[in-house]
Parts: sequence; C-alpha cells; structure tokens
Amino acid sequence: MTSAGPGRPRSQQPSRPGATARDEILDAAAELFTTHGFANTSTRSIADAVGIRQSSLYHHFKTKDDILEDLLEGTVLGGLKFARAVADLPPGEGTPGGRLHAVALYDGTQLCSSRWNLGILYHLPETRGGRFARFLADRQELRNLYGELGAAVSPAGPAAASGNPGDLAFRLVESLVNLRADGLATSESPLQAADAGLILCGLAEELPAIREQSAVLIGQLG
Amino acid sequence: MTSAGPGRPRSQQPSRPGATARDEILDAAAELFTTHGFANTSTRSIADAVGIRQSSLYHHFKTKDDILEDLLEGTVLGGLKFARAVADLPPGEGTPGGRLHAVALYDGTQLCSSRWNLGILYHLPETRGGRFARFLADRQELRNLYGELGAAVSPAGPAAASGNPGDLAFRLVESLVNLRADGLATSESPLQAADAGLILCGLAEELPAIREQSAVLIGQLG
Repeated sequence: MTSAGPGRPRSQQPSRPGATARDEILDAAAELFTTHGFANTSTRSIADAVGIRQSSLYHHFKTKDDILEDLLEGTVLGGLKFARAVADLPPGEGTPGGRLHAVALYDGTQLCSSRWNLGILYHLPETRGGRFARFLADRQELRNLYGELGAAVSPAGPAAASGNPGDLAFRLVESLVNLRADGLATSESPLQAADAGLILCGLAEELPAIREQSAVLIGQLG
Repeated sequence: MTSAGPGRPRSQQPSRPGATARDEILDAAAELFTTHGFANTSTRSIADAVGIRQSSLYHHFKTKDDILEDLLEGTVLGGLKFARAVADLPPGEGTPGGRLHAVALYDGTQLCSSRWNLGILYHLPETRGGRFARFLADRQELRNLYGELGAAVSPAGPAAASGNPGDLAFRLVESLVNLRADGLATSESPLQAADAGLILCGLAEELPAIREQSAVLIGQLG
C-alpha cells in the first residue's frame, strides 16, 4: 500500500532514533543540515528522509528555522542545565576546580557524543539575529557560567593576564566540535579539554584530586 | 554610459579593496559568503557586488568553489609560510617556547585581522572532500607544525596527559574565529591565545622572556 515517492504514508516501523515523529524529524534534519548544509536542505527533503508527508512535518514545525533552533538548543541545553546545577550547589560542595572541571567534562562529553555534530552550524550566517535569540542567550549564559567558575578558581592564576581562564576552557570545549569535524576526536578528548582548562587556571599539580571531585559531581548531578 | 542593472561595465574607481579585478571578486565573495552564506550566494550576485559582468567573473574563476578555495587558502597560507620559516631556522635561533609562541601569535593575528572572518566557513559540508584537498592539506600541515613545536617545548609538560600542547595551541588560535563571530575578539585576543598555548606547555613562569623571543622572530620573519 505504500508508494516509493515523496509524501508516502509513514511506515509503521520508525526509520530513525526517537520515540516520536518529532524526534525523527529532528534526527533527519540534523543529518541533512550537517552533511548537505542548511541552505541546501528543504523541508521537503527532511519529510522524505523521515518517510512522512511534508504537511505532517508542518504539523510539528512551522519553518526550517524552527527545526534548526530546536537542534541548536539541544547542543547547549544539557551542558547549561548541568552548569546551573553546579552553580546552585551549597558553597561547601565541591572545590572551585572540581566544579569547573565537571562542567567542562560534562559539556564536552555532550558535544562529542551527540549523533550529529551540530556545533558546526553555530556560526552560519543564518543563525545570527533575532530568530535564534533563545539559543544565543542560552549559549551566552553557559559561557558566563564558565567565566564565573574560572574566576572563582583562579583569581590571579597564570592565565589571568591571558584573559579569563574559564572563557578559555569554554573555547577549548567548543573546539571539540572542530576536532570532531576534522575526524580527530577520541573518547579522551572531552577529558583532555577539561584538564587543559584547569591547567590554564594554574592547577596542573592538583589535577588528580580535581578529576576525582569532578567525577563525584557528575555522578551526583549528571 | 553606465546602467544600474547587473552586467554594467566595471566603473573606473574600484569599489573594493584590491589592486586587481580578481582581488575585488574575492573581497565581494568573502563578504557575501560570510554574511549571506555560501549556498545562498550565486556567482551572479558576486559579479553584481563588484560591478562587473558575470562573464568577466568567469574569466577569473570557473566556479564558485574555485573562489571559496582561494579564500580558504588565504586564511592558512600566511600562518603556514611563517610556521615553515620558523621550522627551517637553525637549531640555535629562538627557544622552542619562543618559536611556538611566535607561530601562534602570527597565525592568530592573521585570523583576527582579515577583512572577513572566513574561518567560519571551515566546517561547511561543502568544504569536505576532494575539491578542497589543497586547503585541507595546508591546514593539516600547519596543525602538524604546531604539534612538532609543542612536542619540542614540552616533552613531558603538564599537558602531556592532556594531549599534545601544540595541538591545543592550534585549537585555541582557531577558536579566535568563533570569538570574532561572537563579537568578543579584541586586539589582545591573539596574544592571549598564544600565551595560553605556552601555559599549557608548562611555561607560565617563562612567559615574559618567551614573549620577547617571539617578538624578535616575528620581526625577523613576519
């Protein structure tokens, strides 16, 4: 009863990861945006890749921008929620170094383990401006939390003259996106980025203890 | 004698930086690719932006990909030539720390001072694959030179467990592209990235001397 053309009814067996049609649409769009490019992908081709009618897609997302916004949000929201939880801990729980390390490791692990490397879309001209304000604000809040954690760790550390070490840690974690795009990321890459962030805070000697505190925080809040 | 429509003769006064029509085409394309997106820009719109006929544009570049390749090459070639010159110095000239710092500072300054922030196009799906092999090979060679310099500085430095510190320096320098895209780059950003690379090599204490050696190398080879 199913035809091979576009607009055929959705098959009974979902073709993609995701519990819902909405999740399947997001997965198909993520694949097409990161492999063919955002501008080169139509909502029609996304619907075809899921095996639904274009009109069904519009039931979930009004525009292609709406899909992109959800996908970009997905790249920061996990890290942001974790960083907020760390920032809300009582002062006694976790050292400043352990906190920054945990945020960087958790965030970097999210960036490296997502099915599609959506961070390569961060600097598309299409993502500038008001339409993506929520994503941009969330990413900025995450960046600020890194900055606050870095300032708490290292008020006058070796990198003080080199800018805020928390912001450098944020940049090293985001560079995992490029490392993935270049095919150079390994399972150790998120830990290496987090460690480097702490070295920039002047805490190279304390890294073994900080890694233990970081693992406790991730086990508790992650 | 000039009409306002597309395809009008090139005006006597060049409208853009660049000594030649070819340079003007590259400048117009760089603006359009970074502000409207690569896929959203046609060779026709580039010709219009320069004020030349589309057929004149094809005299200089056969395809839009040829223009993009020239632009991407332009983002790495200055840094690569400098890094090769540093690598070719006799062993006695410049300390390993001064060499890595000079390469990072020179490369980062190039990335921050170009008229258009072309690095945001590095991870476009369109730049993968054989068509851009020359750019990809040049960028990889530059990355390898950072890696060799980092290994020479810090055979067992604090970042040894955190991956090659030279590669981390390369990633921090490339993150200047993102910093620019986010509107957060300052005139100090390239120096901060170079300094951070050296801190990751365990040379925080030696930074004042290393900065002096770095300045000498840039004065000599830059």
